[in-house]
Amino acid sequence: MIVVGERINSTRKPITAALEARDEAFLLNEARRQWEAGSAYIDVNTAMMRAKEAEVMVWVIELIQGEIPEALIAIDSANPAALEAGFKVHKGRALMNSINMEVERRDAIIPLVAEYKPRVIALTIDDSGISKNADKRHDLGVQLIELLTTIGVELDDIFVDPLIFPVSAELQAGNTSLEIMGRLKQSFPGVHTICGLSNISFGLPERTMINQVFMVLALDRGLDAAIIDPLDKRMMANVITARTLLGQDKACRSFLKAYRSGGFKLEPT
Amino acid sequence: MIVVGERINSTRKPITAALEARDEAFLLNEARRQWEAGSAYIDVNTAMMRAKEAEVMVWVIELIQGEIPEALIAIDSANPAALEAGFKVHKGRALMNSINMEVERRDAIIPLVAEYKPRVIALTIDDSGISKNADKRHDLGVQLIELLTTIGVELDDIFVDPLIFPVSAELQAGNTSLEIMGRLKQSFPGVHTICGLSNISFGLPERTMINQVFMVLALDRGLDAAIIDPLDKRMMANVITARTLLGQDKACRSFLKAYRSGGFKLEPT
Repeated sequence: MIVVGERINSTRKPITAALEARDEAFLLNEARRQWEAGSAYIDVNTAMMRAKEAEVMVWVIELIQGEIPEALIAIDSANPAALEAGFKVHKGRALMNSINMEVERRDAIIPLVAEYKPRVIALTIDDSGISKNADKRHDLGVQLIELLTTIGVELDDIFVDPLIFPVSAELQAGNTSLEIMGRLKQSFPGVHTICGLSNISFGLPERTMINQVFMVLALDRGLDAAIIDPLDKRMMANVITARTLLGQDKACRSFLKAYRSGGFKLEPT
Repeated sequence: MIVVGERINSTRKPITAALEARDEAFLLNEARRQWEAGSAYIDVNTAMMRAKEAEVMVWVIELIQGEIPEALIAIDSANPAALEAGFKVHKGRALMNSINMEVERRDAIIPLVAEYKPRVIALTIDDSGISKNADKRHDLGVQLIELLTTIGVELDDIFVDPLIFPVSAELQAGNTSLEIMGRLKQSFPGVHTICGLSNISFGLPERTMINQVFMVLALDRGLDAAIIDPLDKRMMANVITARTLLGQDKACRSFLKAYRSGGFKLEPT
């Protein structure tokens, strides 16, 4: 499971405040805790800095990699300029969050992918918005995979996000996203599926619990990457346990390692 | 989800003691709490009473149905005499736990099914023991379904249990049982699958957690009945949440009802 640590996102108020104050200690603590909890990438979103988005992105990337040289960043922006500024200073191979099939955005981002060769998150949305139709979103996923492989991106470097509607608004929201994940993994063995899970629980109480259970269902359909809070111990415990139960943990080694290091000492949600 | 409350089982020490002492208050409390927590059936196993198994089975069934007239019992025995004694006194339609393809047992039980017409749990095992092979266990499930329908049992009254090895002993144990569930549901729409989950976690720490996560995976493969402890609040919360996420809970009604009645006020596991 490839974990993208989601906490350094400027839509979260404490992060906005820390970014505005250039609070190095706070941000480094957020980065370090996520890194130590097993993140493969630390997502950085500075969109709420508006005109300073690119400048702050560069500052955060250099801050984190200055302190944790081996850390890799998921450069999270809808703004090609901020993405490029990030790629220019990032050491090692970044994860780009994200490309989609909105024409203007796609056409601005493709040259960046060709030049900087990041790994790529691809969202199944186009200029008509997010479709509720599983076939439509699946087909957008296929188009993105084909587009990216055409410019030389390997399947192993593509992370397709099937996107998720809230189940409170749409009875089949969970099933639709789960179906898309399963179909894409079957059609393109080797491609990754990724998901920001939390939209599934929008509008309902007990969101943490809902997200944790949805993770298990998604793992059953082949989800192998997720944008989550790696400090959510039950979420991480569910991931480890589900992988063990799905036969992906030889001799239960990861499970027992997590157990011995306190990974299952869970607080109530 | 059809819940079979598993607590009144003579392999559990407090239950053995209560059965030996004919402790009505203790057993009625166990029955009532399981019933109120949403059990469709209350399992009763008196096997450890040995020569008195049938006599104690009758006593417990009459005790429970005397106090909770609408309660139905899962009459749980490997002993045809105890099963029959139970069927004779049970009011309403019992669930028989269980038949399998061991020849002697099967041939003794079939006449009881024909006479008392209980709903039936069918275990995918024969005289050669539990196979590790998914095809073999799937085929035993098919044979049991065909045998039972031949003597007039409806698919809706058959609960096939794919059985489970511990994942600590067998890397693919979870996958094998999940695959059997999925295949049987696909081949026989309308048949139920049922599972005593807890064997999956044998030999590992954090068994409660493992069982709870396995339940979510099993629900994803179509499990629609389970022999569980309905007083395990997180297990029940996982069931409700997974069903909501799988599009089986219109307007999230069951989820919100459980939330309002405190179903998500969970203790740490």
